[in-house]
Amino acid sequence: MNRQILLTPGPTPIPPESLQAESLPIIHHRTAEFVELFNETQENLKYVFQTREKVFTLMSSGTGGMECAVVNLVSPGDKVIVTACGVFGERWVKILNVFGANVVALRTEWGVTVKAAELEKALKDHPDAKAVFTTLTDTSTATACDILGYGKAVSKTPAILVVDAISGLAGQEMYMDEWQVDAVITASQKGLMTAPGLGFISVSPKGWAAVQASKSPRFYWDLRAIEKSSHDGETPFTPAVSLIRAVNASLKLIRKKGLPQVFQQARDLAKFTREEGGKLGLGLFAKDPCDVLTAFVLPEGVNGGALIKQIVKKTGISMAGGQEKLKGRIVRIAHMGYIQKADIEKGIRALSENLAEMRAAAARP
Amino acid sequence: MNRQILLTPGPTPIPPESLQAESLPIIHHRTAEFVELFNETQENLKYVFQTREKVFTLMSSGTGGMECAVVNLVSPGDKVIVTACGVFGERWVKILNVFGANVVALRTEWGVTVKAAELEKALKDHPDAKAVFTTLTDTSTATACDILGYGKAVSKTPAILVVDAISGLAGQEMYMDEWQVDAVITASQKGLMTAPGLGFISVSPKGWAAVQASKSPRFYWDLRAIEKSSHDGETPFTPAVSLIRAVNASLKLIRKKGLPQVFQQARDLAKFTREEGGKLGLGLFAKDPCDVLTAFVLPEGVNGGALIKQIVKKTGISMAGGQEKLKGRIVRIAHMGYIQKADIEKGIRALSENLAEMRAAAARP
Repeated sequence: MNRQILLTPGPTPIPPESLQAESLPIIHHRTAEFVELFNETQENLKYVFQTREKVFTLMSSGTGGMECAVVNLVSPGDKVIVTACGVFGERWVKILNVFGANVVALRTEWGVTVKAAELEKALKDHPDAKAVFTTLTDTSTATACDILGYGKAVSKTPAILVVDAISGLAGQEMYMDEWQVDAVITASQKGLMTAPGLGFISVSPKGWAAVQASKSPRFYWDLRAIEKSSHDGETPFTPAVSLIRAVNASLKLIRKKGLPQVFQQARDLAKFTREEGGKLGLGLFAKDPCDVLTAFVLPEGVNGGALIKQIVKKTGISMAGGQEKLKGRIVRIAHMGYIQKADIEKGIRALSENLAEMRAAAARP
Repeated sequence: MNRQILLTPGPTPIPPESLQAESLPIIHHRTAEFVELFNETQENLKYVFQTREKVFTLMSSGTGGMECAVVNLVSPGDKVIVTACGVFGERWVKILNVFGANVVALRTEWGVTVKAAELEKALKDHPDAKAVFTTLTDTSTATACDILGYGKAVSKTPAILVVDAISGLAGQEMYMDEWQVDAVITASQKGLMTAPGLGFISVSPKGWAAVQASKSPRFYWDLRAIEKSSHDGETPFTPAVSLIRAVNASLKLIRKKGLPQVFQQARDLAKFTREEGGKLGLGLFAKDPCDVLTAFVLPEGVNGGALIKQIVKKTGISMAGGQEKLKGRIVRIAHMGYIQKADIEKGIRALSENLAEMRAAAARP
C-alpha cells in the first residue's frame, strides 16, 4: 500500500501535533479548561486573520461560514456586488440569490480576476451597493484577487468588503485590518492544517453595523448570539471540542513559524511547482495565479479525470481535477499548509510518468 | 490530577475505537475509500434511526440539524404545533419563530410532557397545522415524550411529526419508521459516543413532500442538494472526514452490541442512578423521566452551581446543573452512550460527600 499524499486543496495534510490533539479524551465545554482553550484559540486566530476583532468559530464547513456571512450582513433586496472568476465566486452569487439579495455579478474569464479599477467603477455605477463579496484565492481556477486594491476601493464607500479566504488564509498574503476588509471567512482544512468541520468568521466594526441592520432571519448563524456567548468563553451551541483543540495545535505551529515565513513558503513552493510543471510542458491556467495552489492546463486529448484517478491508484497521491466547465481540462496541485516540497516532487514525478503513459497509450493505433 | 469523568449529557465519554479513528491521517473525500466510509456510515445510521430512509450527515451541532429541519420542512406563515416541556422544546419555538412559522406552543409544566391525547386535541383544533415539532428526551428537564403516541396521532392527519432526538437517540427507545416519525434529528456527541461537530437528519416520504413544498430560503441546509450528492457517496460541501470516521467506529460498536441491549443498559443505569440518588434523599425533577439522564432536585438552600463546580474541582467528575429557570436548583447525571456504571457510582459518591460538606458548612453559625 502506498502512503497517501494529499496535494488536494483541502483537506490538506495534518501535522502530528494536530492529529494528536484531536484524539485526546473529550472534555466538557463548560469547564475552565475549555474556556482557556477557547480564548487561546481566539488569540491565535486573530493572529492569522491579522485583526484586532474577535474571530468566531462555527461548527460548519467553509460554505456554512459563507452562508453565515450572507445572512448576517445582507437583508433581502439589498444590492451587492460579487467578483467572480471561478466556482467560488459563483458560490457567493448562488448563496446571495437564495437569500434574496439583488446581485450585480462582475464576471471575468475564469482565471482572470476583476481589477481594482473595475470594482471602483462598479461601485460608482452602483452607489447603493451595500456590500462587495469576493474571494482571496478561487480554488477552482487557482487565481488570487487583489484584496488590497479592493479594500482601498470599497473603504471609500458605504459598502463593506466580504472576503471568502477559505483556501487562501495563512497561505496567500492578506492582513484583514490593514487592508480594510470588513468580513473574512475561512475553514479548518486548508491553510489551517486541520481536519475539516470548522468554519471561522471575523467582522470589522463597519461590518458589525451591517450585522445589526440585517433583516435576514438567522438562528444557528446569528453572530449577535455567537458574540454574546464569546464573552463567557463559550459558543451558543455545543462546540466541536476535539476539532477546536486540533486547530489550536495547528495555529500554534503557524504562530511559531511566523506568518511572513508561511507566506514565503507558499510563494516558494508555487514557484517550484510552476517551474517543474513547465519542464513537462504544462502551462498555467490562471492569468492571475495565487500562491496556495497551481492549476495546469492539460494537453489536448488527455482526460484529466482519468489521469487523476490513475495517479491516486498507482501512487497514493491525490491531486484535484477541474470543476464544472473545467472538468477534465486541468490538474490542480496545492502547496498550502503542511504540504512539503518532497510531496510536490513526488506529485510532479507521478504527473510526468502518468502523462507520458497516457500519451503513449493514445498514440497506439 | 484526577482522571476526568464526564457524566454530562453531551459531550459524553468516547470509546477508544472512536478516538483512534478520529486521529488517523486524513484522506481526501473524493476517493473510493471515503465513498466506502460514507456508505457504511449511512447504513449504520439507518440502523440506529431504525429507518429505511437515508440519514444525512451535516457539518453542524445538533441545533444546526434543528435549523435544517425547520427550513426544509416549513414555509414562512405555516402553522406548526410544538410540544415544550423544557429548554429544548422552547428551542424549537425560537427557531420556528425566527423563520416565520405560526407557532402553536403546547406548554406544560417543565418535566411533565404533553400527553398524546392532548396533542390529538390540538391537531383537531388546528386542522391546518402542517407539522408537529417535539423532543424525544428534553435534556434540560430529563423528560421523555410519548413519541409512539404522538406518531399515532399525527399520522392520521396531513401534518408531519418532527423529533429532536439529539440527546435521546441510541438511548431512549424510538423506531422512526415503525413509530411513524417523519423527521428525526440527532448529533454525534450523545448516544452516538463521538466528539461533537456532526448533526444527522432523516426524513420520511411524507416529510419529503414537505421538503419539496417548503418556500424557506436554504443553501447550506438544503436537503435536496444533500440528497443529490449522496447518490455519489458525497456531501455537497467538504465533509468532516475525521469525525465521520469516528462516528462510524462508534456506530459499529452500537451495532455489535445491538440496539435492544443499548436501550436496556440505559434503562438499567437510570434505575440504578435513581435508587442511589434516593438513598441520598434526592427526588426526581421529571414527572415523566427519560432513560438517558436523570435530574435530581437539590435540597433547599444548596447552590447547585457551586456544588457542581466543587465536585469537578475536587474529583474531576463533570455533572450538569440546571438551565434557565432551573439554574442552581437541579443536578443532572447522564447515563447514555459510553458512560459506565462505575462512573455513575463515583459520581453518586462525590455528590453525597459534597452535599454533606455544603450542608455542614451552611449549618455553621
